[in-house]
Amino acid sequence: MSLTFEITARAPATRARAGILHTAHGDIETPAFMAVATQAAVKALTPDDLESIGVQLVIANTYHLALRPGADKIAELDGLHAFMNWQHPLMTDSGGFQVFSLGAAIRDGVGKIADIFPEEDTDKVTRRQGDKVNLSLSPRHLVTRSPNSAGTPLCRIDDDGVTFKSHLDGAVMRLDPERAIQIQHQLGADFILAFDECTSPLDTYEYTRAAMQRTHRWAERCLEQHAKTRRDYQSLFGIVQGGAYRDLREESARAIGRLPFEGLAIGGSLGKSKKEMHAILDWTLPLLPDAKPRHLLGIGELQDIVEGVVRGIDLFDCASPTRWARNGALLVSRARAENAEQRISISNARFALDRAPIDPNCDCYTCQHFSRAYLHHLHRAKELIYYRLASIHNLRFMMRFMREVRAAIRAGTRLEIARDIGA
Amino acid sequence: MSLTFEITARAPATRARAGILHTAHGDIETPAFMAVATQAAVKALTPDDLESIGVQLVIANTYHLALRPGADKIAELDGLHAFMNWQHPLMTDSGGFQVFSLGAAIRDGVGKIADIFPEEDTDKVTRRQGDKVNLSLSPRHLVTRSPNSAGTPLCRIDDDGVTFKSHLDGAVMRLDPERAIQIQHQLGADFILAFDECTSPLDTYEYTRAAMQRTHRWAERCLEQHAKTRRDYQSLFGIVQGGAYRDLREESARAIGRLPFEGLAIGGSLGKSKKEMHAILDWTLPLLPDAKPRHLLGIGELQDIVEGVVRGIDLFDCASPTRWARNGALLVSRARAENAEQRISISNARFALDRAPIDPNCDCYTCQHFSRAYLHHLHRAKELIYYRLASIHNLRFMMRFMREVRAAIRAGTRLEIARDIGA
Repeated sequence: MSLTFEITARAPATRARAGILHTAHGDIETPAFMAVATQAAVKALTPDDLESIGVQLVIANTYHLALRPGADKIAELDGLHAFMNWQHPLMTDSGGFQVFSLGAAIRDGVGKIADIFPEEDTDKVTRRQGDKVNLSLSPRHLVTRSPNSAGTPLCRIDDDGVTFKSHLDGAVMRLDPERAIQIQHQLGADFILAFDECTSPLDTYEYTRAAMQRTHRWAERCLEQHAKTRRDYQSLFGIVQGGAYRDLREESARAIGRLPFEGLAIGGSLGKSKKEMHAILDWTLPLLPDAKPRHLLGIGELQDIVEGVVRGIDLFDCASPTRWARNGALLVSRARAENAEQRISISNARFALDRAPIDPNCDCYTCQHFSRAYLHHLHRAKELIYYRLASIHNLRFMMRFMREVRAAIRAGTRLEIARDIGA
Repeated sequence: MSLTFEITARAPATRARAGILHTAHGDIETPAFMAVATQAAVKALTPDDLESIGVQLVIANTYHLALRPGADKIAELDGLHAFMNWQHPLMTDSGGFQVFSLGAAIRDGVGKIADIFPEEDTDKVTRRQGDKVNLSLSPRHLVTRSPNSAGTPLCRIDDDGVTFKSHLDGAVMRLDPERAIQIQHQLGADFILAFDECTSPLDTYEYTRAAMQRTHRWAERCLEQHAKTRRDYQSLFGIVQGGAYRDLREESARAIGRLPFEGLAIGGSLGKSKKEMHAILDWTLPLLPDAKPRHLLGIGELQDIVEGVVRGIDLFDCASPTRWARNGALLVSRARAENAEQRISISNARFALDRAPIDPNCDCYTCQHFSRAYLHHLHRAKELIYYRLASIHNLRFMMRFMREVRAAIRAGTRLEIARDIGA
C-alpha cells in the first residue's frame, strides 16, 4: 500500500468521517478539496500561492498532459512534481473523461468546452458530471466532426480502448487501460485513476449497463498494468459507474469495491438533479469498503460538498471555484452572500467605491491587501493580476470551508455544516 | 519643492550621473527604470511582486484612469497609492500622448494599439516615441473614424486643449492643461507630467514648431494649475518637445528648462533612427538645468538606456520589458543571448527539455523556482501563471541592469556599461 488512510473521527447519525491520508509527499487532512491543475498549473496560481492558501492536494489531467508537453517529456524531467515544482501530494485524472467529452462538446456545443480547451473560461457545464443535464457524453454519439478535420470522427470507442483526435493538432491517438496507466506512471502523481467510460444522463439503461461492464473489465486491466510499472509511492483509485440506475450503481460499487484498489472514486452521470445525485451516493457509498478513501469526481459547490461529506466522501475536486473567480464570482460568508451559492459578482457597480475587502472574515492575501473597489476595477479592466487575486480568494475560501467541515466532524456535531460554515 | 534630488556621483568623460530622488513615499536611486501600470496595475504583478523585484517607482496613466474607473472615484478612495496599495513613489503620465494617439492608431493600424487598448499585447510600436518610424501622431491627421462611431472624429485639437472620444464607450471628453493637471492631483502621484502635444517623425518643421509653441503655452498653464490644486508632496515635470529638429529642440529645452518645473522630461518624436535619437539628446540635455531630474519618456531597450544615461538621463519608463515577457521574449545576460537585444524566445522547441532556469545568473523568483522547460510549456499552454513568472523575470532583469548602471557610474569607470552588464 502506497497510501495509508487513518480515519480519526466520525460524525454521529451520518456517514461523515474525518481522517488523514498519508502519502510519500505529505499528509492530507480529509475531507479535502483539491485544486485543479489541468495543464500542470493551477490557473493563475504558483505552488507558493497554493501553499499559502493551504492547498493540500492538486489534480492534473492525463489527456491534456499526454498531448502537451507529452508524458515522455515530463518523465524525462523527473515527473510532474519536479516539473511543476509542487512537492506535495498530486493526483492525475485518467483522461477517459476528456476523451469521451471530445465528441459531445464539439458536436452539441452545450459546454464541456472548458474541459477540452482549458483556456476557455466557460462555466456552462461543470466537470465530469456536475448538476447540469444538457450534456451528452455517450460514446455512441461521438462520431462527430472535428473543427480542424471536417468529416472525420473525433473519438471512436471499442471494447479494447478509445481512438481519438487531438483537439490541438488533429493527430490520431489511442488510449486504452494499459496506456492510460502507463502515462500516469510516467507523470508520477501520488494518486492515479483507472481508465473508465463516462456515460451521460441521457444514456439508456442498456447503454449505461454495457459501458459499466466495459469499465469493470478495464478496471482489472488497469490493476494489472499498475502492478507492472507503478512507481513505489503511487496508488491507484478505481471508479464506480452506473449512471443514475440503482441496480447498476450497486453492482458497480460491489464490483469496484472488491478489487484491490487503494482508493475509490464516484464517476459518470450523477443524474439530472441534486436529489438524484444524493440518491446515487446513498446507494453507492454503503457498499464501498469503509477503510478506503472515496473521491467524488468533479463536484465543488458548497452544498454538494456537504451532501457528499455526510454520505461518506473524503475527497473532492472541481475547477469551478477558480473558474468562478476568473469570471468575477467571489465566494463570501453566508451573511454577506447575494444568493444560496454564497457568491458576489465583483463587476457589479455597487462595488465601485467599496473600501472593504471581498469578505471581512477572510484571511486570504487578497482580502488582507485589496479592496472590492480595486478588484472591481481590475476585473473590468481585465488586468492579469485580477485572475490571481480572485483565484487566491476563492480557493482560500474553499480551504477554510473544508477546515470547518473537518472541525464539525471532529466536534461530533450533527454536521449542521451547511448552516454554520462561513458565517 | 516636493522632491529633492541629490546627485551623488558623475562618470568621467560623459554626462552620466547617479543620485537619489527623495520623495514623500521614499527614495529612488537614479538612474532608475520604472514599471508601467497603465490601468493602476503593472500587468500580471502585485505590489508585493514589485517590491521583491526591487521596483522603486511605478508610472500610471491619466487618460486610462480618467476613463476607468474615473479620477473622482480614485480621489474618493484616497488616491492612487491607496487604491493600488502601492506605498512607494508613483508617477502619472498626463494623458496627452494617449489622446493624440487615438486617431493615428486606429486610422493607420501601424501600432500604438497597445497604448490605447492595454489588454492587447502588440509590440509593433513602442510607447510615446520609441525607435520605430511607422507611426503618425500628427493631430492634423486625427480626424478619423472610430470603430464604434463611423464618420465621427475621434480626436480634435485646438489651441486650448483636445476633444476626443473614449475608446471604451465613445463618450465625448475634453482634456486641456488645467484638467489634465487637476486629474493628476486627484490621482495623487508623487510626480506628474505637464500636458503636451506629441508630434511624429512624419511631421513637417512648421507643424512641429507650432505644436512645440502650443506645448510651451500649455506648460505655463500647467504650472499655474499645479500651484492651485496640488497635494503638498506632488512635483510637476515639464516636457521638452521639438521633434528631430535641432533648433526646435534647443529652443524647447531652454523654454521648458527655465520654467519652475521640479523635473524635466524628453517627449515627442525622437527621430527615425537611433542616431537621430542620440543627436536629439546631445542637443537637448546640456541646455537643461543640471540640478533637476530628467526623464526620457517611453524608452526601455538596454542599449537605449545606456545611451540615455551617458547623455544625462536619470529616469526611464517603458512597457516593453513586461510586454516582451508576455510574448515569450525573456531577457538574459549577454553571454547567453541569441541576439543584440539579449532576449531568448521561450517558445522555441529547444527549451522543451531544458532544466536550467531562464538565466542561471538571475536571482529572480522565477529563476529560483522554475525551469525553462516548464516556462516553455506554460507559454505554449497559455497558462496564466506564465505571464506573472515571465514578467517577474524581465522586470527583475531591468532592475539588475539599472543597478549595474548605477554601480558603473559610482565606480567612475568610463561607462562601458553596455559591454559589461549582465555578463
